[in-house]
Amino acid sequence: MNTGVSLADVSAAAARIRGAVMRTPLLYSEMLSRQLGCELWFKCENLQYIGAFKARGACNAVLQLTDEEARSGVVTHSSGNHAAAVARAAVMRGIQAHIVMPHNSATVKLNAVRALGVTPILCEPNAAAREAMAADVMHRTGATMIHPYNDLRVISGQGTVALEILEDLPEVDVIVAPVGGGGLLSGTLVASKGIKPSIHVDAAEPLLANDAARSLKSGQIEQNDRFDTIADGLRTPLGTLTFPIIRDLVREVVVVSEQAIVEATRTIFRTVRVVTEPSGAVSFAAIQQNPERYRGQKVVAVISGGNLDLNILNDATTS
Amino acid sequence: MNTGVSLADVSAAAARIRGAVMRTPLLYSEMLSRQLGCELWFKCENLQYIGAFKARGACNAVLQLTDEEARSGVVTHSSGNHAAAVARAAVMRGIQAHIVMPHNSATVKLNAVRALGVTPILCEPNAAAREAMAADVMHRTGATMIHPYNDLRVISGQGTVALEILEDLPEVDVIVAPVGGGGLLSGTLVASKGIKPSIHVDAAEPLLANDAARSLKSGQIEQNDRFDTIADGLRTPLGTLTFPIIRDLVREVVVVSEQAIVEATRTIFRTVRVVTEPSGAVSFAAIQQNPERYRGQKVVAVISGGNLDLNILNDATTS
Repeated sequence: MNTGVSLADVSAAAARIRGAVMRTPLLYSEMLSRQLGCELWFKCENLQYIGAFKARGACNAVLQLTDEEARSGVVTHSSGNHAAAVARAAVMRGIQAHIVMPHNSATVKLNAVRALGVTPILCEPNAAAREAMAADVMHRTGATMIHPYNDLRVISGQGTVALEILEDLPEVDVIVAPVGGGGLLSGTLVASKGIKPSIHVDAAEPLLANDAARSLKSGQIEQNDRFDTIADGLRTPLGTLTFPIIRDLVREVVVVSEQAIVEATRTIFRTVRVVTEPSGAVSFAAIQQNPERYRGQKVVAVISGGNLDLNILNDATTS
Repeated sequence: MNTGVSLADVSAAAARIRGAVMRTPLLYSEMLSRQLGCELWFKCENLQYIGAFKARGACNAVLQLTDEEARSGVVTHSSGNHAAAVARAAVMRGIQAHIVMPHNSATVKLNAVRALGVTPILCEPNAAAREAMAADVMHRTGATMIHPYNDLRVISGQGTVALEILEDLPEVDVIVAPVGGGGLLSGTLVASKGIKPSIHVDAAEPLLANDAARSLKSGQIEQNDRFDTIADGLRTPLGTLTFPIIRDLVREVVVVSEQAIVEATRTIFRTVRVVTEPSGAVSFAAIQQNPERYRGQKVVAVISGGNLDLNILNDATTS
């Protein structure tokens, strides 16, 4: 099966982005292992530069541009961590970044781009407006589009998360990763199954944005019809490049409630003592809600990001 | 100069407690380095088991008991992280832990002991009551006292924090560590100066509990006359074993306001994306308030603990 991305691509990405991204820690939780009856580690991509795994794929894409391409800059549209990731990668390479963001993006995400010295290009908050604005920028500037997940360079970059997990813990039985557009999940699948075919990879997603679970059932890419899960990073549908990889290699998509996501965010805060955004906690929510599924096994939950707006969490728990 | 603790003691402690404590990550902050004009790393003892460096000294002490001593158990008195650290070390060795705690200790600290299966012995919240209760337990049970900081085994254990810093970043110029009773600071001084005499070590403490700064000035151990700093782990005076080490080896004790401590806690939350208790953020507060002091240097701030009661932080910022 040719997935379009190979273990060799992920290994090449790892060599390419070394030094440009953080080799994040894999933290063992003694307390949660005892409570849940498994051996549980957290791969802390929330501690990554810009606070999310997105730094990896964006660096891998931007570093592959030819000098000629690079001269025209890069463009992307994102309401989330991919925006800051592309801005950072462009600043590091010294090229122009055009970052299209919906005007109602979370303040923490807008500020992350601004902190890098890049002014976001604001647009109306819908897919059509985002794409039109990005297309317009491409047209005017010749900038290269860096899609948040439906891009082979991005998928290969995100897969380096799994390479590091398997370097640090070759005996891992199961990796649980959140799924939104599927860049992290498909990269993780290619890398981890490539190194260790016996490994299991579960995906985790919110019940309110269960498009991945439905896509696996129907055999085609399904859309979400609501966009209100607190896990704002996981509202996107799968891509044409990520879907076939996930369909062929994932063990199961575990679906979790909003309350489980909030509880997982708080448990990680209190017990692992790292800050996770709700999207980042969905993988652990899947484990916390289904301990019997992982009992006695060596399990790694990927915390995908840590850009938390505390107000959102407070609202969610008091309402 | 014989300090009572040598680099060899700290190295022996590191070998003794290996596997029993976490080798915590040293996280580089790209964002804060840019903002503050230095190269800044965080040594994350808030991610340590039980959420504080205290796990190290307690393990080093408990693992040195003879089998005969161990049979009678251990006793300590603490309102803070040392309580859980001793409880955990005792549980790991399979011996009895008698943990005397003031009845008004923070809920998060009481629960940490209970989560280990140990029931705290509650006492009145003053030094005399704590010491009398602990002495009574020693008398009745023959348990060995493990003092939170005025104990050579404990100081040696805490010094392993600095060993790891120098292993990971031999080129470090300055380490900044919080000072309460001085166990972490004195262990850090002995280890880091022993390995690299040119290193500077600054201490950081709250203005409201500036006993260490005053002790250095007067040449004798000074007491605090108020106990209301938000950095509850730093309210204690220096010990007879820690004071001479600190007096002889520390570069300066940097004093910070309550507001600076809260701001540092929030900055670490948002930028490094780890949870720190106020006491743990005091080292970074010293850097954030005095960037010119550290400009152009390679600086490590030790985050000493992460058992944060969010309500206390909210109260502090809204009042």
